[in-house]
Amino acid sequence: MNQQDYVVATYLVHGSGDFHKKAQGIAVGLTVGSWTDLPAERQEQMKKHLGHVVAVEELGRDEERNGKALLKIAYPTLNFTPDIPALLTSVFGKLSMDGAIKLVDLDLPDSYTKRFPGPKFGIDGVRQSLGVYDRPLLMSIFKSCIGYDSETLAELFYQQALGGVDLVKDDEIFFDDTYAPFEKRIEACIKAAGRAETETGKKVLYAANLAGPVTEIVEKAKRAVRAGANALLLNVLAYGYDVLHRLAADPEINIPIMAHPALAGAIYPSPQYGISAPIILGKIMRVAGADLVLYPSAYGSVALEREETLAIAAELRKESGLLKRVFPVPSAGIHPGLVPRLYEDLGNDQVINAGGGIHGHPGGSAAGGRAFAAAIDAVVKGEGLQEAAAKSPELAKALELWGGK
Amino acid sequence: MNQQDYVVATYLVHGSGDFHKKAQGIAVGLTVGSWTDLPAERQEQMKKHLGHVVAVEELGRDEERNGKALLKIAYPTLNFTPDIPALLTSVFGKLSMDGAIKLVDLDLPDSYTKRFPGPKFGIDGVRQSLGVYDRPLLMSIFKSCIGYDSETLAELFYQQALGGVDLVKDDEIFFDDTYAPFEKRIEACIKAAGRAETETGKKVLYAANLAGPVTEIVEKAKRAVRAGANALLLNVLAYGYDVLHRLAADPEINIPIMAHPALAGAIYPSPQYGISAPIILGKIMRVAGADLVLYPSAYGSVALEREETLAIAAELRKESGLLKRVFPVPSAGIHPGLVPRLYEDLGNDQVINAGGGIHGHPGGSAAGGRAFAAAIDAVVKGEGLQEAAAKSPELAKALELWGGK
Repeated sequence: MNQQDYVVATYLVHGSGDFHKKAQGIAVGLTVGSWTDLPAERQEQMKKHLGHVVAVEELGRDEERNGKALLKIAYPTLNFTPDIPALLTSVFGKLSMDGAIKLVDLDLPDSYTKRFPGPKFGIDGVRQSLGVYDRPLLMSIFKSCIGYDSETLAELFYQQALGGVDLVKDDEIFFDDTYAPFEKRIEACIKAAGRAETETGKKVLYAANLAGPVTEIVEKAKRAVRAGANALLLNVLAYGYDVLHRLAADPEINIPIMAHPALAGAIYPSPQYGISAPIILGKIMRVAGADLVLYPSAYGSVALEREETLAIAAELRKESGLLKRVFPVPSAGIHPGLVPRLYEDLGNDQVINAGGGIHGHPGGSAAGGRAFAAAIDAVVKGEGLQEAAAKSPELAKALELWGGK
Repeated sequence: MNQQDYVVATYLVHGSGDFHKKAQGIAVGLTVGSWTDLPAERQEQMKKHLGHVVAVEELGRDEERNGKALLKIAYPTLNFTPDIPALLTSVFGKLSMDGAIKLVDLDLPDSYTKRFPGPKFGIDGVRQSLGVYDRPLLMSIFKSCIGYDSETLAELFYQQALGGVDLVKDDEIFFDDTYAPFEKRIEACIKAAGRAETETGKKVLYAANLAGPVTEIVEKAKRAVRAGANALLLNVLAYGYDVLHRLAADPEINIPIMAHPALAGAIYPSPQYGISAPIILGKIMRVAGADLVLYPSAYGSVALEREETLAIAAELRKESGLLKRVFPVPSAGIHPGLVPRLYEDLGNDQVINAGGGIHGHPGGSAAGGRAFAAAIDAVVKGEGLQEAAAKSPELAKALELWGGK
């Protein structure tokens, strides 16, 4: 068995049955359907399509024989096309419904990975487009987008940009944009970014929420590029990974794509079912071509276990000869007092992302941005936040309000 | 609050916090972002975009204050576009990651539903295309597709069609079709269907697995139609509901679409997380335009609770002034001995679907089909299976092998 010809999926299974038998059933059932009853000549032809059991690791049973195990199954890449729908349907389509089973890892060989687009920009490309190399980036989220017109959003964008943020993203629930049509608001916000840049000297990326029929979404992204967009936001799980893939593969869409994790919580949290967060928000996002990926941080209002967040970031950032490294964006409930912990976890190559932690600042959004910028500046220099707060009244105010050492 | 202007989502939440406060946070946070700190004039403008708490039903707490509750939140349809990605992201995008929360129901007002395509054929249309009105339909699944060429698949199709099945579907993991390219195998199988029809007098639909880049999939479906396809299979969750929607909305794709539930098991089984099966496999499939929907039956190898299966079927079949009724296709591990139970549950308007229960018949696939046909004939007449088996040696053999009264 040449490892380059197989995808290896690892499943955590719970149950009272024979795990070896289950593994064998998966390896055959999800590839060639049946094996022992095939004529020898047919077996010879089908061998290259047959799945294999790589390992069955029993993790213990109780007195009623209920237990759990890790099953590793190798699937020939020959059986699927190089796209995420084919990959996931093949390794976890029907199987996802077969009792207590969770897909916890997925090893893709280089021979298969290289048939995917991967990120066009990644960490280095995004840094290059901003001209910022030596610190975590800072992103601000519109407090709310629904019901606002382009001019108001551009003004709110300007306020955020003045605070020194590197990126501003739309609210991911911004779909009905009657008052602020996609291209019109891109033009308005990009103009506001230019206006802020003349004051701050800093470039700002605007990730506009790309939405609409999947049949038109790639064309719409191209229209965004022509309207001057310098980034895009996509609810990848809602639209399907293949939409991300096709956007990333299109050379005309020459701007970074930010993946939002909306709906991921319907899939990763259960210990018995679903697909683990490092796979759906880490590995697969990267292969399919995200340049930045948002996910719940370990410290905010919507929390993931710290180990999970580190595993997501590891998938996004680990060295690979094939795929660019991707920006992790730990999110939700982030305020300046959390910057030291985020920095300790991930260092420079991350995006510090805040909504309420910027807009909720008593001095307004620009002051909120400056408080974060001061906190980031401090951690990079190895300074304490209190020390930095002595020089930044905005940071002092933020620490007073939200805490932080 | 005019109910026609709101989608109402019901969530099951677990936790120790204040459920009323949580509900209020959702209603505001997932619509206008914040409310109490908006100026009065702005509140007036934003009122129509604001979500509302419809109900908070506490379901009890233990001594440590851990409990559960059902929260009903109304979201203005004004906030989203009429498509499933916008709908799901809006009501469960970020929220899916916010602790132990499951989306268990979703009420769509007619004013919103009517902006979706819905099924083009539904039960009546599929029956019409087959000319079969007075019994459950019978479907056979290719035992395996991977690695076979078009001629072999067409021959296997012919064997299945001879057994009297109404539909034959591809294996849903059939992606790499190098040996049996999509249009070529459609032509070959449709020809085989014609050949069988001259012998049996029965029309057969072939649901070919529609796959490939989302940017090309609608065009590919049209090519299938031009090649003579009379049905399509789609892994809806892998490709995204919007792909189903756009296929259903396209008048040139004038053939029924069968939805496969692959990956649904990553979403519905947990009691604490995800989205319930009747929503993802029932309601949303119907709105987005599926004509037939497969799901795990309560009786086979991959089982759902009986109540869940009935709830899925209820969503698919309930009378609606707006949407055609959809064929439920309870699947996985079905053999002829289970036909009475399926019939008792769902009556005529269902598809009895079998793979191993047809191909595993000692007399071969055609005999396997005839055993099912005899069982279906019996239950419709109110005959017992043993009684019918006296007239059908194929059914007698099947009952001997798999059991059944």
